[in-house]
Amino acid sequence: MSTKNMVLKKDLKEKRELVNIAIDRFLPRKDEYPKQIHKAIRHTLFAGGKRLRPYLLINTYKLFKQDVAETLMVAGAIEMLHTYTLIHDDLPEIDDADYRRGRASCHVIFGSDIALLAGDALLVYAFQAIADDDKVDKKLRLEFLHELAKDAGHLGLIAGQIIDIQSEGQKVSKETLEYIHANKTGRLISLAIRFGCKLAGTSEEDEKNMEIFGKKIGLAFQIVDDILDIEGSQEKLGKATGKDLKAKKATFPAVYGLEKSRKMAEKLIAEAKELLAPYEDRAELLLMLCDFIETRKF
Amino acid sequence: MSTKNMVLKKDLKEKRELVNIAIDRFLPRKDEYPKQIHKAIRHTLFAGGKRLRPYLLINTYKLFKQDVAETLMVAGAIEMLHTYTLIHDDLPEIDDADYRRGRASCHVIFGSDIALLAGDALLVYAFQAIADDDKVDKKLRLEFLHELAKDAGHLGLIAGQIIDIQSEGQKVSKETLEYIHANKTGRLISLAIRFGCKLAGTSEEDEKNMEIFGKKIGLAFQIVDDILDIEGSQEKLGKATGKDLKAKKATFPAVYGLEKSRKMAEKLIAEAKELLAPYEDRAELLLMLCDFIETRKF
Repeated sequence: MSTKNMVLKKDLKEKRELVNIAIDRFLPRKDEYPKQIHKAIRHTLFAGGKRLRPYLLINTYKLFKQDVAETLMVAGAIEMLHTYTLIHDDLPEIDDADYRRGRASCHVIFGSDIALLAGDALLVYAFQAIADDDKVDKKLRLEFLHELAKDAGHLGLIAGQIIDIQSEGQKVSKETLEYIHANKTGRLISLAIRFGCKLAGTSEEDEKNMEIFGKKIGLAFQIVDDILDIEGSQEKLGKATGKDLKAKKATFPAVYGLEKSRKMAEKLIAEAKELLAPYEDRAELLLMLCDFIETRKF
Repeated sequence: MSTKNMVLKKDLKEKRELVNIAIDRFLPRKDEYPKQIHKAIRHTLFAGGKRLRPYLLINTYKLFKQDVAETLMVAGAIEMLHTYTLIHDDLPEIDDADYRRGRASCHVIFGSDIALLAGDALLVYAFQAIADDDKVDKKLRLEFLHELAKDAGHLGLIAGQIIDIQSEGQKVSKETLEYIHANKTGRLISLAIRFGCKLAGTSEEDEKNMEIFGKKIGLAFQIVDDILDIEGSQEKLGKATGKDLKAKKATFPAVYGLEKSRKMAEKLIAEAKELLAPYEDRAELLLMLCDFIETRKF
């Protein structure tokens, strides 16, 4: 492993632990009544998970400000929202995926009824964590809750999911493919970056710049995810591979082919890196993250 | 029908229409992309539905203040949250109920995948409607979002639902029965009444008094609901009857017997009505609602 990779890996681990501590303190203990729901929530939330969205939020913030304490619960809220989508997506009526973050999926262990409610609870928690976060100014909290709802809702994550489901087994246009992924994956990545900017109180110009950065790496991340579903291994990814092909999902390799998809990811990452130029050395870790997204095997 | 009943019926209809207009304006049109999700949401939201929670919110507010305009979207948010719980509860993995508010359930028409996401979207909408409601002071909005999350979450509605599921087919204690219903039904009814008080800016004493009122009629409502599941007709109720018995659900008649359950509901309603005495004539409609809850056939 190169030195750069080791630096990134160490930083990912550090930030992940900070966010995990914040989430852990916020959530009820595993043995609190009613136990089943708290066990189910923690099962998927504290399985592996790269914590990519929190990492982007925190490291965007760090371009502008140093003390990350005020970012941690907001970052945790985004991770809880992300985890709710994973639990609901994995349910038998949607993707019927048995394996997630290196473990059996929530519904496989706890049953579909409890998994459904664990997802609901995590969605509620995401809002609660922000509403109650006294490290963040009240006006900003209300703005975040508005944005969170907008990006999670019927024209954000849920819209992407609906069109993804309806596109299964169909030949989809490039526009539809982009719509699905801009909403399913891109939204929450952009949101994390926007929250990082807003918490740090950056200029509108920086926020706009970083939002474009977010869109590019969000899309690159999804393209690589689609490629890994074909070329990756379940062991490394922590989830089953080959499932997109089986379900005839709308993916970048399906629409563009593998080679073209790879080129697209490379181009997006190169453009994303250019957008970091104004931040010079402070962007070092985000630059490493870009390289990681391009070349990741998990 | 008695004059009192006609007055109540007319007022219920008026308030229901006001809330429906507020919700209708807030939601995307049925033909907005992605269509399926918006159709599914409106299917269950605009089926019958008594709008009991909004009605309680508005009429509690009216004990203290007259112009109800500022209550309507908050009332709508509570109804959307309530409807999300109905859609998710009706899913095959939980109650597997095919009939709701006089129509086929959401998943029967749109499939379980879309129904699951329609429920998710309604949960998000409930938060969004309050976060964006510029008729309500920002500080109060944040307080409402906090309360909404607390009552919807793992120690509120979801806790009641989990214990309800786990109690199926079991002999439950009186305490467990009360825990289930205090959370599944009582929470949102209390919340509606609390929001009504807070919007009107009442004294703490009035809020406390009305919260006890809410607990009593919430419980009475649930007991009558359990009785109607045995004695009512699907035609009038708009949902299947006899299902609690079939699923061996924890109900008041199952634990206390029919006669005792009826007596309990009567006593709760009598106590609730006493709590309205300080408001004299202004409480007339709420008094009629109490009688309606006790004697309703639907």
